[in-house]
Amino acid sequence: MELTFNLPGLETIEQRTVPLDSSTLYDVLIVGGGPAALTAAVYCMRKGVKTGLITLDIGGQVAETSTVENYMGYRHIEGISLVQRFKEQVQQFEIGFLQGYKATKVIDGNIKKVECEDGNLYQSKSIILTTGKRWRRLNVPGESELTGKGVAYCAICDAPLFKDKDVIVVGGGNSAIEAAIDLAKLATSVTMVQLLPALTADRVLVDELSKFTNVTILYEHDIKAIHGTSVVEAVTVHDRKNNKENTLSVQGIFIEIGLVPNTELVKNIVSLNEHGEIIIDCSCRTSRPGIFAAGDVTSIPYKQIIIAAGEGAKAALSACDYVLTNK
Amino acid sequence: MELTFNLPGLETIEQRTVPLDSSTLYDVLIVGGGPAALTAAVYCMRKGVKTGLITLDIGGQVAETSTVENYMGYRHIEGISLVQRFKEQVQQFEIGFLQGYKATKVIDGNIKKVECEDGNLYQSKSIILTTGKRWRRLNVPGESELTGKGVAYCAICDAPLFKDKDVIVVGGGNSAIEAAIDLAKLATSVTMVQLLPALTADRVLVDELSKFTNVTILYEHDIKAIHGTSVVEAVTVHDRKNNKENTLSVQGIFIEIGLVPNTELVKNIVSLNEHGEIIIDCSCRTSRPGIFAAGDVTSIPYKQIIIAAGEGAKAALSACDYVLTNK
Repeated sequence: MELTFNLPGLETIEQRTVPLDSSTLYDVLIVGGGPAALTAAVYCMRKGVKTGLITLDIGGQVAETSTVENYMGYRHIEGISLVQRFKEQVQQFEIGFLQGYKATKVIDGNIKKVECEDGNLYQSKSIILTTGKRWRRLNVPGESELTGKGVAYCAICDAPLFKDKDVIVVGGGNSAIEAAIDLAKLATSVTMVQLLPALTADRVLVDELSKFTNVTILYEHDIKAIHGTSVVEAVTVHDRKNNKENTLSVQGIFIEIGLVPNTELVKNIVSLNEHGEIIIDCSCRTSRPGIFAAGDVTSIPYKQIIIAAGEGAKAALSACDYVLTNK
Repeated sequence: MELTFNLPGLETIEQRTVPLDSSTLYDVLIVGGGPAALTAAVYCMRKGVKTGLITLDIGGQVAETSTVENYMGYRHIEGISLVQRFKEQVQQFEIGFLQGYKATKVIDGNIKKVECEDGNLYQSKSIILTTGKRWRRLNVPGESELTGKGVAYCAICDAPLFKDKDVIVVGGGNSAIEAAIDLAKLATSVTMVQLLPALTADRVLVDELSKFTNVTILYEHDIKAIHGTSVVEAVTVHDRKNNKENTLSVQGIFIEIGLVPNTELVKNIVSLNEHGEIIIDCSCRTSRPGIFAAGDVTSIPYKQIIIAAGEGAKAALSACDYVLTNK
């Protein structure tokens, strides 16, 4: 028999989105499709302002996260399911929606314009940038096929899934060491694979890591391939000192070699910090009036779904205030 | 028959909280029990630091919100149900938990202490303040009995519930006018009840409000009583100019006369802004090292569940960083 349930907010809804229109002047145009973008969309639509959204894909990095256990309201939920719920929450509104194309350029002015891969120019009184970051990838065989199946990029999100497992952490900076510390508390063994002859992380983190007896560090090593049919089973590491390869049996590999903010479309428009992130204040305002930003693409520390969602709500309310006071 | 369901994260869990212990030195002690507090608790416990939580009650203002429609992941959910889910998410961890008593005083130092109504002094290396705000209440008959049943305090949260209804908004400042604007778009009629002979809101908001033909403003009026058996049915207003009373048939009353931050326990310890809110930076740091704050009690604009939750996560990660780097 089919199971039924009476939980709130989960019944099928009518999809009310409309196509984004290049002849409409929007109040708020959201660029991006991750948690910050979708939350901003809900808040703008509830405020009753004319809202549009352009995104290449929906869910951002959440869509490639296996299980989410730190989003409040769900003790555990597949990344893709959480994305689906966010998306349905947006689709209940008549928002101008364009998916499948990338926004390529923002043109500032009293009326702001967004150039899009679809050949159109979209216009809005204000813009919210939520283009996120992309993980810097190893670009080795097996990596993309096994992402979310043992290949992970976020230890805060995924470390608890590797309790009593053998894992590799790639990298030697702060995020790699933090990942290794989080994993060492849970995993059977942690093997760090570092390209350089030393770690580059803060001393205090290196000291903390040295307390764990289940951590091995392979210096001057890199990754050649990730193996596994449906999940990660082994990883081939390469010793750069003697040019030898060795295949380690592991169930997980955390790739912690940095993140790249997706800011190409606003280069020379808004101020960026030394990491290339869009500098915002606590109200999600960028250096340019009417241009707001939220989520991982910004200078706000910690890249988390719940944080991005909160920032998206803030950006939306700030943009609505801006539109109301700049008529 | 009993309905069953296979949705993720909703099965019954073992409750693993332990009593808060005055002889333990915690890494992070969270004061408060709203969305910011509960999110901070989950993040701290997942980071593996020794965490405690003191709160008079659970859920903060969410517990008294009828339906929540702007928390991402749920299109609509009762405030109390959302609180329950947050709470269960915390209870899966061995967190030191004290509910039912108010924290009365924070004592700063290298080791921080929190004085509690239960007569104990609890100790921690860091503190996260999430004590929230309380709505300024009218203190008239019917108000507390009908809260969440037509008596509302948050237009962003609850306005959509009053579509095609007659409502009153009490107040004349920015938040009252914003509430009236949000409501005027949906409700049949909006009656503003303002104590003073004029509105005190920003000009732009007053101009915006004047565009609506379904809004009436009663100047120099106050509220005498709110009536209704299970939901709001009528409100008695009092004309201060002629001392006459009049009972209006309405289904909702939004009380928008301000919020009071709950900062009594940290007066003279952390810096407050002109509204009495705890000043924090974008990483939730207060003016005192090792004391963090998140949610409505802080200087961050916009009081929303999703924003408070995001800020709680940030405060937790900042506090964990502080504990790790200040050993």
